[in-house]
Formats: sequence, C-alpha cells, structure tokens
Amino acid sequence: MASNQHNSYGPGHAIPHVKHHEWRTAENSATHLIAHLQSGAAQNPKVRVLDVGAGSGTITASLAKYIPEGHIVATDISDDILKRAKFHVDKEGIKNISYQKASVYELPFANSSFDITHAHQVLTHLDAPVDAIREMLRVTKPGGIVSLREVDMAMWCWWPELPALQLFHETLVKSMVDNGGSGNAGRQLLSWSMKADVPRENIEMTFGTWCHCLPEDRESMADSMIERLRFGPMRVRAIERGIATEKDIDSMMEAWEKWKVTEDAVLGQTSGEAIIRKA
Amino acid sequence: MASNQHNSYGPGHAIPHVKHHEWRTAENSATHLIAHLQSGAAQNPKVRVLDVGAGSGTITASLAKYIPEGHIVATDISDDILKRAKFHVDKEGIKNISYQKASVYELPFANSSFDITHAHQVLTHLDAPVDAIREMLRVTKPGGIVSLREVDMAMWCWWPELPALQLFHETLVKSMVDNGGSGNAGRQLLSWSMKADVPRENIEMTFGTWCHCLPEDRESMADSMIERLRFGPMRVRAIERGIATEKDIDSMMEAWEKWKVTEDAVLGQTSGEAIIRKA
Repeated sequence: MASNQHNSYGPGHAIPHVKHHEWRTAENSATHLIAHLQSGAAQNPKVRVLDVGAGSGTITASLAKYIPEGHIVATDISDDILKRAKFHVDKEGIKNISYQKASVYELPFANSSFDITHAHQVLTHLDAPVDAIREMLRVTKPGGIVSLREVDMAMWCWWPELPALQLFHETLVKSMVDNGGSGNAGRQLLSWSMKADVPRENIEMTFGTWCHCLPEDRESMADSMIERLRFGPMRVRAIERGIATEKDIDSMMEAWEKWKVTEDAVLGQTSGEAIIRKA
Repeated sequence: MASNQHNSYGPGHAIPHVKHHEWRTAENSATHLIAHLQSGAAQNPKVRVLDVGAGSGTITASLAKYIPEGHIVATDISDDILKRAKFHVDKEGIKNISYQKASVYELPFANSSFDITHAHQVLTHLDAPVDAIREMLRVTKPGGIVSLREVDMAMWCWWPELPALQLFHETLVKSMVDNGGSGNAGRQLLSWSMKADVPRENIEMTFGTWCHCLPEDRESMADSMIERLRFGPMRVRAIERGIATEKDIDSMMEAWEKWKVTEDAVLGQTSGEAIIRKA
C-alpha cells in the first residue's frame, strides 16, 4: 500500500472543466489501447476491463463499445463524478459498465481480476505513482495488460505565442506540483513501470497528442481554462501559495479569451503512453 | 517566388546523421498522410505524388509502396543525398520513384502537376516557409492535397533529465534559428497555410510523435547527435556564433553517451501535421 497521504484531484469538478473532459474518447485519448482491447475481445469476448480514475467516463463509454460482450468497471475517488458518468452512459443505452468508488492505491478487487487495467491522466495527480502502478498490476491477470496515458506538461505548445498563456502554463505546472502531482509524468511512464518491477521488455512506450484548433474545440478548451482561473482551485491555490497574483490571473483569462477567437490558434499537448504486459 | 537568399540544409549529411534519418518511414513519420494516399490511389491508381526535400528517401520509399501503380517524384536541394536515396531504393527493387534536384521555392514542374505534394521536416529549415507552401500549392492539382509535417522543438522531452541534454536542446534550437530556420514550426503550420491564402476550412491540423526508447533507437539517435556535436555544422556554428563553448559541447556528448546506455531512457518529440485541400 501507498504510505503517502495524498489522494486528491487538484483541478476539481466544475461544469466547464468537466464538459471539456467529456470531449475525451477512446479515439482521441486511448488509441494506444484500442488494438489490444480488440485482440483481447477476439480471444475472449467476455473480457473484463478496469478503468481507474474514470472521471466523467466518456473514455470508458467509448472503450465499452469495442467489447460489447465484455464488461468495464469504472472507478473514481469522487462519487459525484461517477454519478454524472452513469447518467450519460445510461442515456446512451450502454449496459456493460458498472461504477465503484475507489482509490487507485487500494483497489477493492481480488488479485488477477481484470484482463486490462487502464488509467488516463491519473498518475500525474499522484505523489506515489509507482505504488499506483503496482496496485493496478495486482488486480490484472498474468498475461493481461496495464495501460497508462499521462500528459507531459513540458510538451505543450500554443499559437499565437501570447505571453500570458506562457504564464498560465507555468502557473498550471506549479499548481500541479504544489498539489503533490508532477509536470513531467508522460516521459516517466517507462521509468515508473520499471520501478514497479516490470521487466523492460514487457513495456511498450509511445507518445500521443491532442490538437485543439477547430472553433468548437477552442471554445471548450478556453472556457475550461477560464473557469479554472475565475472560480477553480487553480486560482485559489495559485494566489494562496504565491504562485501567481490576481493581476496575473486576470491577464491569463484575457489571453484565453483572445486565443479562443483567433482563427489560426492552436494548442498542442503530448502525453506519454505505456502498455505493460503483466508477466 | 521567395525573395530570401536562404536555402541551405543546416544539419549537413554526415553518415550517422543520415543513418538516423533512414529510421524514418511513412508509418512513423507520415501517418497523417497514409489514409489520403490510399483514398487517392483508390480513386486513381496512377496517382502522382511529389515528395519535397526527400533527403535520404526512406519516407518516399515507404510511401511508394502504398501506390504501386502511381509514381513519386522525390526532390532535394542536394544531389548527393538523392543519389544515396536512389541507391537504397534500387536495392529494394522499388520502381515507381524518380529523382530531381530542386529548391522548394522553385519547383521545376508545371502548375497542377501532382495529386499529392508532401514535405517532411523541410519548412523548419527555411526563412520563408509561406513562400514554400505557395509553391507546393502551385504544383498541386485543384482538389489535391499538400501534406506537411514539421517538428516543434519546444515539444521535446527526455528522461533522465540530464542538465547537459537541456543545454543541447537549447543549443540546437539556437543553431536552427541562427541558420534562418525556426524552432516552433510545428505549431505554425495552420497559421502559415492561412498566410498562403488557404481558407481555414481546407486545413486539417494534427500533431504526431516520435518516441525513442528501445536500445537500437537510443543508439541511432545518440550517435547521430554525438556526430553533430563532434564534427558537424552544429559544433562549428555554435562555437563560431558564441552559442556554446567547447566545454559545453563536451558535456553534451557525455550526456548523450550516458542517455544511450540508460535502460529507462526516453526521448519524445512532437511534430505539427497539416493536410491542406487545394481549392
């Protein structure tokens, strides 16, 4: 078990932030996993999948479509966000997902319960990511897969190069680190997996990207960021901890408003991805 | 026509550097193009493709396999590198590629000559990238595609976080900019295409990645970088222009040697990608 005390989701669950998360699907956020999910379902249609830290569950829902006879358990430390996930999935008529409140450090499942255990954008918020990987490996069957995807904050870029977006990015990284997480999780997935005693040859490491540049994607992204800055824990923490001033935060909100309506605006983000084969 | 005088390939063509380039294939460096190539060939098997700045031609060769009845013209400003490309392609028995020395600013082809015009890692070395896009559009048929892929140097990450690799990265970006290129081409592909008068709705922008972490990939990458530092134009330029000292460069070579043999080492690199539909 993890000896640390840190177990919170820093960004919080305000509506524009959650709505932006709901842009995420298997197709834009878990491409590294899809082929494995398909081959798992081909071998055993009743494949069992665990989605750790599933949040508002749009990735879970789109993964479920690849395994119509299989089943996914979605966990999160927040009951409220799981209720939202369930509401949307019920509306879509997806039947093969169940929900359970759980910490990634103490998954309430027996050893070797799942064929595939997946986490997206979870380890970056933790101060003991290696413990989390060990726990995910524990509940995965031998021969099964642990699948990880975590952003690497250094691998962001934006156009136009507004100075207040640079300041926003620095403030965001400092806030994540201040909350016990890390700004460079993506590049460490191989290293963390090896620290969890996975042999090198059982780990496949890649990177994946998001590109926000279509008008509707710009709006969703910018509104999510502006909400964090106006009301979210990012504002409170940044000011309390001396990471940024009120004036800095005002300039960041203005920059996102400008970026949102700039026709050639782009935001690129890169995540590390790992497929770990459990021995 | 471009009014600028800059038209050189900064990194040069030393063997370890070229060998590293030969790791590049359509599958790891042009995934954004493959579906368009396939649908182009399905509509017209005799599809004509131009690969601008093809260098040692391994991407060209693997693109050619998708269009067995089509034809690719590979251009480069260096005759020597095209000879190397032809030598390898001839050995592989690929028949549908021809070679022609040309500058991207003055392509020796009539208007509307090609169904698809592709450039990988070319615009980043130019001081007039918008002129280059205009010229690529000129030789492309209406309804055809211009396909671009350019690194964004800010979107690199490496593990372990050796300080001399950080210094190497800063030196590399300064050298590219000093030679008339740019360190942030990837994020600007949408903007540059719009400056070349392409309507926003005709441009599809994405990002793609490379991950170097397998032992053989680490060796090829590190040897290429060490060669640049030991003998290449990067060393000469960095010292001449006061970008780095001999001692700095020695520390960078040591860091790459260490990175090469580190089992959990990773290098991630992200490129912008654009598919432009010519009106």
